[in-house]
Amino acid sequence: MKVTLNADLGEGFGPWTMGDDAALLPLIGSASLACGFHAGDPATMLRVAKLAQAAGVSVGAHPGFDDLRGFGRRRIETDPAEIPAMLAYQVGALSAVCALVRHRVTHVKPHGALYTMACADPALAGAVAGAVAGLNRTLILVAPAGSALAVAAGRYGLRLAAEAFCDRGYEADGSLTPRGVAGAVIDDPSEAAARAVAMVRDQAVVTRQGKVLPTRIDTLCLHGDSPAAAAIARAVVAALDEAGISRVSLPELNLG
Amino acid sequence: MKVTLNADLGEGFGPWTMGDDAALLPLIGSASLACGFHAGDPATMLRVAKLAQAAGVSVGAHPGFDDLRGFGRRRIETDPAEIPAMLAYQVGALSAVCALVRHRVTHVKPHGALYTMACADPALAGAVAGAVAGLNRTLILVAPAGSALAVAAGRYGLRLAAEAFCDRGYEADGSLTPRGVAGAVIDDPSEAAARAVAMVRDQAVVTRQGKVLPTRIDTLCLHGDSPAAAAIARAVVAALDEAGISRVSLPELNLG
Amino acid sequence: MKVTLNADLGEGFGPWTMGDDAALLPLIGSASLACGFHAGDPATMLRVAKLAQAAGVSVGAHPGFDDLRGFGRRRIETDPAEIPAMLAYQVGALSAVCALVRHRVTHVKPHGALYTMACADPALAGAVAGAVAGLNRTLILVAPAGSALAVAAGRYGLRLAAEAFCDRGYEADGSLTPRGVAGAVIDDPSEAAARAVAMVRDQAVVTRQGKVLPTRIDTLCLHGDSPAAAAIARAVVAALDEAGISRVSLPELNLG
Amino acid sequence: MKVTLNADLGEGFGPWTMGDDAALLPLIGSASLACGFHAGDPATMLRVAKLAQAAGVSVGAHPGFDDLRGFGRRRIETDPAEIPAMLAYQVGALSAVCALVRHRVTHVKPHGALYTMACADPALAGAVAGAVAGLNRTLILVAPAGSALAVAAGRYGLRLAAEAFCDRGYEADGSLTPRGVAGAVIDDPSEAAARAVAMVRDQAVVTRQGKVLPTRIDTLCLHGDSPAAAAIARAVVAALDEAGISRVSLPELNLG
Repeated sequence: MKVTLNADLGEGFGPWTMGDDAALLPLIGSASLACGFHAGDPATMLRVAKLAQAAGVSVGAHPGFDDLRGFGRRRIETDPAEIPAMLAYQVGALSAVCALVRHRVTHVKPHGALYTMACADPALAGAVAGAVAGLNRTLILVAPAGSALAVAAGRYGLRLAAEAFCDRGYEADGSLTPRGVAGAVIDDPSEAAARAVAMVRDQAVVTRQGKVLPTRIDTLCLHGDSPAAAAIARAVVAALDEAGISRVSLPELNLG
Repeated sequence: MKVTLNADLGEGFGPWTMGDDAALLPLIGSASLACGFHAGDPATMLRVAKLAQAAGVSVGAHPGFDDLRGFGRRRIETDPAEIPAMLAYQVGALSAVCALVRHRVTHVKPHGALYTMACADPALAGAVAGAVAGLNRTLILVAPAGSALAVAAGRYGLRLAAEAFCDRGYEADGSLTPRGVAGAVIDDPSEAAARAVAMVRDQAVVTRQGKVLPTRIDTLCLHGDSPAAAAIARAVVAALDEAGISRVSLPELNLG
Repeated sequence: MKVTLNADLGEGFGPWTMGDDAALLPLIGSASLACGFHAGDPATMLRVAKLAQAAGVSVGAHPGFDDLRGFGRRRIETDPAEIPAMLAYQVGALSAVCALVRHRVTHVKPHGALYTMACADPALAGAVAGAVAGLNRTLILVAPAGSALAVAAGRYGLRLAAEAFCDRGYEADGSLTPRGVAGAVIDDPSEAAARAVAMVRDQAVVTRQGKVLPTRIDTLCLHGDSPAAAAIARAVVAALDEAGISRVSLPELNLG
Repeated sequence: MKVTLNADLGEGFGPWTMGDDAALLPLIGSASLACGFHAGDPATMLRVAKLAQAAGVSVGAHPGFDDLRGFGRRRIETDPAEIPAMLAYQVGALSAVCALVRHRVTHVKPHGALYTMACADPALAGAVAGAVAGLNRTLILVAPAGSALAVAAGRYGLRLAAEAFCDRGYEADGSLTPRGVAGAVIDDPSEAAARAVAMVRDQAVVTRQGKVLPTRIDTLCLHGDSPAAAAIARAVVAALDEAGISRVSLPELNLG
C-alpha cells in the first residue's frame, strides 16, 4: 500500500513568504510549485526547486489565474480557448527553472479557482488536460477521482493521481466543506493523521455526516500555508509509517 | 553571403497591440518574441508563435525586465544572481508555448535595458550567457560583436549571432545614436536598404560622422514598432535580394 | 434639450495606446478616465486629464477590476465588501492626478465587467453607490436608467446621469446586443447620428426588433476604441447641433 | 522635548502579510502606509487606515516604485518628469481610502529606492517636493535633515519632519550603514532604546566609529518588518517616557 503526500509550495512572492517550505519538504513526497501567476516568482521557484531536488521530492506545476492580489482564489471568467497558452506558459517556466537545478516537472495540478472550476466544468477540464497532453504525455495530472478534470485526464491518455485532503472536511456529495463552515479545516494533527490512514487504507473519504464515500486516493494533500502544517505533516507521516503504508513520490506510484 | 533579418515581435499585451507582426513575418528570417515580462502574454505569444511557424521564421526568446509599464526600457538595479531564474522562466515559458504549435525556440536575445546593461557589464553578461548555456547549449545568443554579452557567449561555448541595426545611427565608439538625437532613427526605406546591403557586404557599420567601423554582422534587426517598419523591411529585402545576399533564418547561418 | 456626449479615454498603458483621445476630446462633453486597474497609468492619466482640462471636458473616474491582461472585461468573483476600498483607491488616484492640472473628478462610471455586474447585482450596486457617496456626495454616478446601479444611486442620494449607447444595438429586454451578434455595433456614422438624435428627442432606445423602449437618457456613450470612433463622433455632433440639442458637460446637466 | 515614533505599515499584499501592524500601532505616533506600488492593496490600506484612526495614529503616504516583486527596493531609472503623476496617484489613492474611515493623510515619505534616490538627487528631490506641494501645501514631507529631499521641501515651502533611525547604524558621512555590513541593524531592544533617547536629547546620531554627528531629529523610524520590531518599539517607548520626552503624532510637532 502506497501513497504520496503532497503540498503546495513556493507560494511566496518577492519579499513575501507563505508557509514553511523547508519544514514540509522532508515530510512529503511531492510538491506543487506556484508558477508566478497566483504566487511565486522566478527566484522563489528556483530556491524551492533546489530544495525539492535535494530532498528527493518530485515537483509539479501548480498553475493558476494571473491574479496575485486574489491569490488565484477568485473565479475569473475564462474562455477555454485561453487555457492552453496559459498553462503552457506556467508549466514551461517552471520546467526551465527546474532544469537549472537538474530537477524536472513530473506532474501538473491546477491551483485555487482554476482547480475548482476545471473539476466541475468539462470544457475547462478538457482544455486543461488537452494542454498538458499537448506539452508532454508523460506528465501526471492531479485531480480528485471522478471530477471532470479526472475524466478529461483519461480522455487525453494522461495518468491521473487521484487526490484527497486529510486536513479538510467533506460534504455528502463528496465536495470539500466550504472554508468558513465548521469542520471545513481539520487542524488537530492526530485527527488528520487518523483520517489519512483511514483514507488510504479504505480508499474512501468520510463526510461530516459520517457517511463513507469510496473513492480512489493516490495522493493526500497537506495545506502548507496553515500554521499547524508542519505538525500535521509530522503526525500524518508517523501514522502512515505505523500503518505500514509506504510514502513515495508521485512518479513512484503505479498509475497505469 | 548570408544574413538573417530579425525583428522583435509579440510586443502587445492583453488588449493592446504594437507593430504589425503579420506584415513583417513574410519578410524576416527570425523573430524574437516578448515573454510576458516587458510585453507579451500567453495568448499573444501563442498567436505569434503559430504565425512564425507557418511562415518558416525561426523564433527566439526576448526576455526583459518585469516592467510592463516601462516596457523593459528602464534600467532596473539587478543582482546577477537573479538572472538565471529570470531568464529560465521566460525562455521556458516561450518554449512550452511554441511546443503547442510544434515550433521551437532557437535563440535568446535580451530586450531593452537588460540588453543594454548586459552588453556593457561583464557580470550581467556572464550571468545571461551562463543561464542560457545552463538551459540548452544549442541556443544561439544574439548580441553585437565585441560586446560584453558576445564575449560571454564565447566563454560559455554558445554560438553567437552578431547583430547590427540598419535602421539606427551609430556613434564613433560603435554604440547606437541615442533616441532623440538627430540621425538616431533611419526611417527612409531606401536609405535603410542601402545601409543594410553595405553592412552585410562590408561587415561594417558607418557612423554618423562617416567613419567605417568593421564588425562582424550575422543578423540585421528591423524595429517592428515603427510606423514605417513594413516599408523599410520590404526595401531592405528587395535590396538584399538584388545584391545577391541570401536571407536565411538564424539556425541556417554558419555560426561555428 | 440637452445631452452629454461621453467617451472612455486614457485607456492606454505604458507604451501602449488605445483609441485617439486627442481626436475625440473636442467633440465630447465628458470623459471617463481609466484609473490604472484595467488600463491607464499615472503618466497617461495626467496627460489625458490635462487635455480634458484644456478642452473644457468634464472628467470622471472609470474604475475597473485589477485585470490589465483582460482589460477589466472578465468577470471576477467579487465580495461586495471589497468594493469600497477598490473604488476609493481608483477615484482618489485620479482625483489627485487631476488636481495637478487644476481639473477635478465630477463623476464615476464603473468599467467593463464591473459595470455589467453592478448594473445587474443589487449587492454590488449598493456597494458601488455607497462607496461613491462615502467619498463625496456631489459625485455623479453614470449608469443606465433602471439598472440596479441606477437604483442604488438613488438610494444613496447620488445624482444619476442615465446613459445610453448610440453605437450599440439593443435587445428586447433593453440590454445591449452582445458583441459578436449581428447588429451589436453600429459603425456607420450616419446611422449612429440618426439614432443619437432620436434617442435624446424621444428619450427611448429602439431594439434590433424595432421596438421602442422609453428610457431616460442624459448622456450618450461613444466608444473611443473603435477605428470609426472619431468619424462617428463628428456625425453625432453635427446631427445633434442640427436638431437643436445642446451638448454640455455632465455637471451642466440638470440632474436634480 | 517631543518626538514622533513612526513606522512603515500596510506592507502586505493580497494574501501576504509583513510585520505586525496591530502590535506596533499602540506604540507609535505616525504610520507611513504603502500605496499599492511596492506593497499594499486597497483592502490592506483600508484595514490599516482604520486601525490607525482608532489608535489616534497620524497617517502618511509611503509611495514607492511600481515594483512589487522587488518591494520598491531596486533602483529604477526614473525621469523626474514622471514623478508628479506617480506620486499624486499614490497619495490620492490613500487619501480617498482614508476618507472612507474618516482619517486623513498628513504626511508623505517616499519608500525604499525612491527615498534613497530622492535624498541624493536634487532633480528627483525637487520633483517629489514639487508634486507634494502641488497636491497640498499642508502635507509634511519626511526626510533626513540635510538631504536633497529635505532641501527641496524647504524650497517648495513644505514643512519637513526630519527623520533618523534608532535601529540602524550610521557611517561617518551620516548615511545609513548598508544592510549586510556588521552593525547595520540594531536588534537589541535596550541598545535601540538608549540610542533613541540620546538621538532626541542630543539632536545627533552617533556613527559606527563613535563620532557624534549633530542633526535635527523630529521623528524616529522603527522598522516594522523586523521580527524584533514590537520588542524594540516597547523598549524605545519606555525609555522615551522615562526620559521625559513626549511622544506625539507628526501633526503635533512644531515644524514651523
